[in-house]
Amino acid sequence: MDFRHITLTEAKRLIQTRQLSPLALTEAILERIVRLNPTLNCYLSVFKEEALARAERLSKALKDRRFLNPLYGIPIGIKDIIAIRHHPMRAGSKIWEGYTPDQDARVIERLRRSGAIFVGYHNMHEIALGVTNLNPHFGAARNPWRPECISGGSSGGSAVAVVSGLCLGALGTDTGGSIRIPASLCGAVGLKPTFGRVSLRGVLPLSWNLDHVGPLGRSVADVALLYRLIAGYDPQDVVSIPKAVGDPLSRLEAGVVGLRIALAQDDFFTQAEDEILQAVRAAAEVFRSLGAVVEEVQMPAGLLAAQTNGLMVISDAAAVYEKELSERAHLFGEDVYQRLRNGAAVTASQYVQARRTQTVLQKQYREFFKRYDVLLTPTTPITAPTIEGRDSIEAARILTRFTAPFNLTGLPALSLPCGFSREGLPIGLQLVGNQWQEDLILRAAYAYEQATNAHRQFAWSDTL
Amino acid sequence: MDFRHITLTEAKRLIQTRQLSPLALTEAILERIVRLNPTLNCYLSVFKEEALARAERLSKALKDRRFLNPLYGIPIGIKDIIAIRHHPMRAGSKIWEGYTPDQDARVIERLRRSGAIFVGYHNMHEIALGVTNLNPHFGAARNPWRPECISGGSSGGSAVAVVSGLCLGALGTDTGGSIRIPASLCGAVGLKPTFGRVSLRGVLPLSWNLDHVGPLGRSVADVALLYRLIAGYDPQDVVSIPKAVGDPLSRLEAGVVGLRIALAQDDFFTQAEDEILQAVRAAAEVFRSLGAVVEEVQMPAGLLAAQTNGLMVISDAAAVYEKELSERAHLFGEDVYQRLRNGAAVTASQYVQARRTQTVLQKQYREFFKRYDVLLTPTTPITAPTIEGRDSIEAARILTRFTAPFNLTGLPALSLPCGFSREGLPIGLQLVGNQWQEDLILRAAYAYEQATNAHRQFAWSDTL
Repeated sequence: MDFRHITLTEAKRLIQTRQLSPLALTEAILERIVRLNPTLNCYLSVFKEEALARAERLSKALKDRRFLNPLYGIPIGIKDIIAIRHHPMRAGSKIWEGYTPDQDARVIERLRRSGAIFVGYHNMHEIALGVTNLNPHFGAARNPWRPECISGGSSGGSAVAVVSGLCLGALGTDTGGSIRIPASLCGAVGLKPTFGRVSLRGVLPLSWNLDHVGPLGRSVADVALLYRLIAGYDPQDVVSIPKAVGDPLSRLEAGVVGLRIALAQDDFFTQAEDEILQAVRAAAEVFRSLGAVVEEVQMPAGLLAAQTNGLMVISDAAAVYEKELSERAHLFGEDVYQRLRNGAAVTASQYVQARRTQTVLQKQYREFFKRYDVLLTPTTPITAPTIEGRDSIEAARILTRFTAPFNLTGLPALSLPCGFSREGLPIGLQLVGNQWQEDLILRAAYAYEQATNAHRQFAWSDTL
Repeated sequence: MDFRHITLTEAKRLIQTRQLSPLALTEAILERIVRLNPTLNCYLSVFKEEALARAERLSKALKDRRFLNPLYGIPIGIKDIIAIRHHPMRAGSKIWEGYTPDQDARVIERLRRSGAIFVGYHNMHEIALGVTNLNPHFGAARNPWRPECISGGSSGGSAVAVVSGLCLGALGTDTGGSIRIPASLCGAVGLKPTFGRVSLRGVLPLSWNLDHVGPLGRSVADVALLYRLIAGYDPQDVVSIPKAVGDPLSRLEAGVVGLRIALAQDDFFTQAEDEILQAVRAAAEVFRSLGAVVEEVQMPAGLLAAQTNGLMVISDAAAVYEKELSERAHLFGEDVYQRLRNGAAVTASQYVQARRTQTVLQKQYREFFKRYDVLLTPTTPITAPTIEGRDSIEAARILTRFTAPFNLTGLPALSLPCGFSREGLPIGLQLVGNQWQEDLILRAAYAYEQATNAHRQFAWSDTL
């Protein structure tokens, strides 16, 4: 069987119909990891014995069970910042060296109960504070399309592993674009849900205000399934919001006829590369041809939103890592140290102003989404740059421009592949919706994917 | 007619039944202002001509109208921080000297439409940043019970005017206790509604995060009526929350049988004066005798909540007044300048930690109020201290201890008189409820007031 291109949804069907055993699937994935990880560097640790043992157990139990949980036997990778009990976790840093959580994160608990097999911890930008995944301690996660290019981050390892078939789905986190940016640069699908939708319990914090957990996968359906399994109120997470979760899968094929889609126009969009703007415009045409009403619209205060998010992220992170910054600063890599220092230098007055801007923009975007169902933007204004000569802080400024506004406002946003650059690098399309409208953006993304066959057309061809 | 003790509700009934003309009432109030304001210093400006003209117009129109709006012809005073169009407003400061709003605040618009007559702007603590109302520019507002004592603040003038019959109701603001503290020290009823319940549009900000507008009055029914008239969603206020407003008046007499009342116990309650604790315990007994279930309960993290609120208020205020602080700092009075300086020195890290504490405590109090309907505390741990020798910042620390936690958490809280100290100064009882439960605490307060005849028993006897 060819596991390069298999989606989670297909693997699920094969397992549920007993055409594929969890063991065979897990073995194949682990073999691919052995072969490709030395090049791609997307796993920081692999739970080989444990994954095989669980796969074997699940395979044996296959015939006795009538009902199989939705992720029964599916190999999943996890960003090195989400607690899996009894597995040392480091957030890609030296700061957390020696830390072993004794409890699962809430989202892990849920995936575990759904039958998932955890295959390992994914590489990431150190403590998630950066978007290149140039990790000074563990090396860069590399773009499968061109390993001399960055994967994006901070959930870089997760996007790489998903795209290159080293797991069938992943959980990442996103504070300024950390799920969507690597999804965009590597050609994966990534969803940042609404703030408060997915529990943050057991996830090492970067910002108490802007952190989100979300899934990465090879297709929209894969991401929709993972999202449904992790979404929901958690009384033990103080920012979790009690809000009913629908079933995105049941409406995935409902189409986009009559949907009001805003194609973002913005002064700084001119800074996006031409081929990216062309790909996004072409995607808008696809939506139009599918019956959506597409309109070119000014995106409200995108630059201000991105800048405000940037200021809040470093301030929030400096507060979270205050003790480490004063006691063990030498353990941080240079770019993260610089960001934390910058964050520590922010005054409360600046922060209060940023918070007011956040409140105002949240309101403004809620108003915006009374008039439109979906906002279309490029996910990133550039495709993956090369690793060499990259200024991490400057790269972050560019890469987060279209993603960070939706951390600040807490709105759900998804990235999926919509084309290739002349250099053969993936281009990401971002779909944004109103609060709690994950189902709607998943449905729109699915319609686009089906119409263009994106999850095949843009699938990685295992060229390494 | 004796206007010393008349409540807004009584005056309303007399006007609606044509037994009292707005003009006679307004003239009487204006005369009282002329007589008492030189001693009490509770008005910074009086709109004599305008109030008389409107009173006359309303009096003339009395016979032609079948339906009279609820505040038809009622003299109301407004804190010098809430915009009345075309009336110079200063927030009790030199900083705002020369500012004349060209639009009504949303709450003024609503009271105006309800028929209110605005008689003047009330004295306040400079820019509302302090709770003594020792105003270096306009003099202290004085406690009617003992003019050598402070009124409390920052809405001190409003509490004084209401208690001494220089208006029939007032609007104040409350960021750390600024409605409830002067209500407590002067013997008025004051309500701070839920955060987001009453529009802040047209109110000079002190904190975008903790400011609340609310009514002061002579009885619970008066405050309930004013509250109902000003409450409600305002799409033009970014922190206003769309939430249906009930009619507290329709349920005011429903009693407290079966209500679960928590009598607060707290380590720092021992710092409240004995006679205050006794008065609050006696009030709890009244509730018990009326059929409520009263339980002594530890109040969650009261001290931490008060301290966190204190830090946020000065930081928020320093952000709001950043420009003034750098360009015209000499215009601020000494204590306000010191607070703003302290606020400007707060780091973003400290602020982020405070914000996290706020989130955690909001959650904790919401949990608390699943088990209890009403929390009872003293409003202030001391009665009104004398003006001389008062350290304003130290006074604030003491006076805000029981009030500030409910700014931080945004919960509705009301103060009403429940006794006198040996020195003859009023003692305030605070009732706190869950988010949006203003009607419930008004109902409980009303039951107490009716049972004890508090609004008569504790009414000021015009001893000046």
